[in-house]
Amino acid sequence: MSVQPIEWLGNKVRILDQTKLPQKEVYIETADYSVLASAIRKLQVRGAPAIGVAGAYGIALGALAIEAESKEEFLKKFQRVSRAIAGTRPTARNLFYAVERMDKVAQGGKNVAEIKAKLVKEAIKINKLEAEATVKMSKFGATLIKDGFTILTHCNAGPLATTGYGTALGVIIRAAEQGKKVKVYADETRPLLQGARLTVWELQKEGIPVTLITDNMAGYFLSQGKIDCVIVGADRIAANGDTANKIGTYSVAVLAKENGVPFYVAAPTTTIDPSLKTGKEIPIEQRKSEEVTHLRGVCIVPDCEVANPAFDVTPHKYISALITERGIIRKPLGVGINKIIGR
Amino acid sequence: MSVQPIEWLGNKVRILDQTKLPQKEVYIETADYSVLASAIRKLQVRGAPAIGVAGAYGIALGALAIEAESKEEFLKKFQRVSRAIAGTRPTARNLFYAVERMDKVAQGGKNVAEIKAKLVKEAIKINKLEAEATVKMSKFGATLIKDGFTILTHCNAGPLATTGYGTALGVIIRAAEQGKKVKVYADETRPLLQGARLTVWELQKEGIPVTLITDNMAGYFLSQGKIDCVIVGADRIAANGDTANKIGTYSVAVLAKENGVPFYVAAPTTTIDPSLKTGKEIPIEQRKSEEVTHLRGVCIVPDCEVANPAFDVTPHKYISALITERGIIRKPLGVGINKIIGR
Repeated sequence: MSVQPIEWLGNKVRILDQTKLPQKEVYIETADYSVLASAIRKLQVRGAPAIGVAGAYGIALGALAIEAESKEEFLKKFQRVSRAIAGTRPTARNLFYAVERMDKVAQGGKNVAEIKAKLVKEAIKINKLEAEATVKMSKFGATLIKDGFTILTHCNAGPLATTGYGTALGVIIRAAEQGKKVKVYADETRPLLQGARLTVWELQKEGIPVTLITDNMAGYFLSQGKIDCVIVGADRIAANGDTANKIGTYSVAVLAKENGVPFYVAAPTTTIDPSLKTGKEIPIEQRKSEEVTHLRGVCIVPDCEVANPAFDVTPHKYISALITERGIIRKPLGVGINKIIGR
Repeated sequence: MSVQPIEWLGNKVRILDQTKLPQKEVYIETADYSVLASAIRKLQVRGAPAIGVAGAYGIALGALAIEAESKEEFLKKFQRVSRAIAGTRPTARNLFYAVERMDKVAQGGKNVAEIKAKLVKEAIKINKLEAEATVKMSKFGATLIKDGFTILTHCNAGPLATTGYGTALGVIIRAAEQGKKVKVYADETRPLLQGARLTVWELQKEGIPVTLITDNMAGYFLSQGKIDCVIVGADRIAANGDTANKIGTYSVAVLAKENGVPFYVAAPTTTIDPSLKTGKEIPIEQRKSEEVTHLRGVCIVPDCEVANPAFDVTPHKYISALITERGIIRKPLGVGINKIIGR
């Protein structure tokens, strides 16, 4: 992939500022974990797998900067770093997965120097695993895509969101690489336009034909028989298959079902949270109203009360299958999830 | 109503430019029917009933400016005016209803002077009838609204859209005037944000609490049990009750049904087109891509292919009832429509 949303540069991290795309390709380089935490909060780096990787690198940066005489002192200071990263955003499972892995490594090390080295290694490993997972899932997912398919996607689940091949877009890109002629309808994805800004940009780079639509047009094109399947990413998947993803995903899923169109979720198993029985337990982030009322700094509507949930939950009954790096999980999703994550 | 989207000022028409709202209240005064035709095309005046009234006034202006020695010569020139107005926008039934009434008056007059006078009178009458219809339908519709209701609406169907009380918003405003405590969720309604710009502005003027959401949040709030009913306006209603309205209406209707929430359409009988058996025959306007890619003149997305259907059709099975000035039409809508329009 030519686009690297996040890279480890020895003792620094380089992030592509996704809030500036596609107008400008601006990079942020920092050795300060609080800058990285802020970048996650501001969506300069976003997408569940990429948030997980950014979180791991953030913790590594924070750990490297800790001055401590003993492991005990280190762990006390480390906890502050770890909590700050975990507190950036509440919904994406991959962030907590990464934090838990990093915490475990910190606890297991012998001394400060060893822990620091192991944390850096672990963060790089998490990045590698997430990237590899997207490659694997793209191969499984591409088997669901037939030549000539027109695919609807919502938000952005491409290389920018994953540090790898992309989840939903990875599947589409793989199908195109296999010589299948595919077309994409991209929901613009209000309020922050990740679909219009990022998905369109990524698909254009890949040479895949894409038509931009506003979110409220998705139902129309589904009802007109223009869409062969829907593929989206995920931020957290409960044990029964209920899936949290960008606000509006639930609506697309209901409309797909109503029109007999398959609805697929592509996500690494690190997005699955088996500790949550159903999607009702997934915390939904509420973001500030300016994201709705302002666009590129300009107020577009009257001063008014705004609701801005960043995610919604699609109940498993609307999901035709989950595409993971370990294979495709068919219905009933709960049984398949239980089997594939090996509980 | 304090807001007058369109007014007849003797031999001129005054239009409130709705594309500038809510930031600026700019009025356009013109005696030139082609300026009025352009205003309809550009959505400076919009909303099916208001388009009908603007069309009638446009034809009246065009007729007044015709120089003709005979009725025959007049009618030849009049046809050009009438066709120009009819060609402005394809979906709203009220426009063609107004054009047909004006054409009939022109045909029926004795001489040029009489025809001109009668056309002005007819246009004023069409305005009066449309405004009165909204008052009547608001009373019928308010019987469906209980104290404490939270109502979702899409696009703008208020005084700005109707020259009267409003269709969907008229019902809500009437319920509030009756002392019922109501709250509204307003879909912002991309691409042109009529919900955010116009509905929020109108409801704030009426002192009715309103929460702005992006279109893709409607499903989420419906699924959370936050919405007691949905009310929208209409651009054209087929004989079986299938309803064309602003793009995204179909999606809201499907999501309302999925969540057991009543979905009402408020429209005058002039929006009903009994010549069309089903909604499949309703022409859907495709508008230019800049409406999606640009906001207030600023390009917000990469240069790409865009689809921009301005309307969609909600099949009658998703509509709980139609609210008209002649009463509420219950299911089966086709039978009720046939009865109420007296065929």
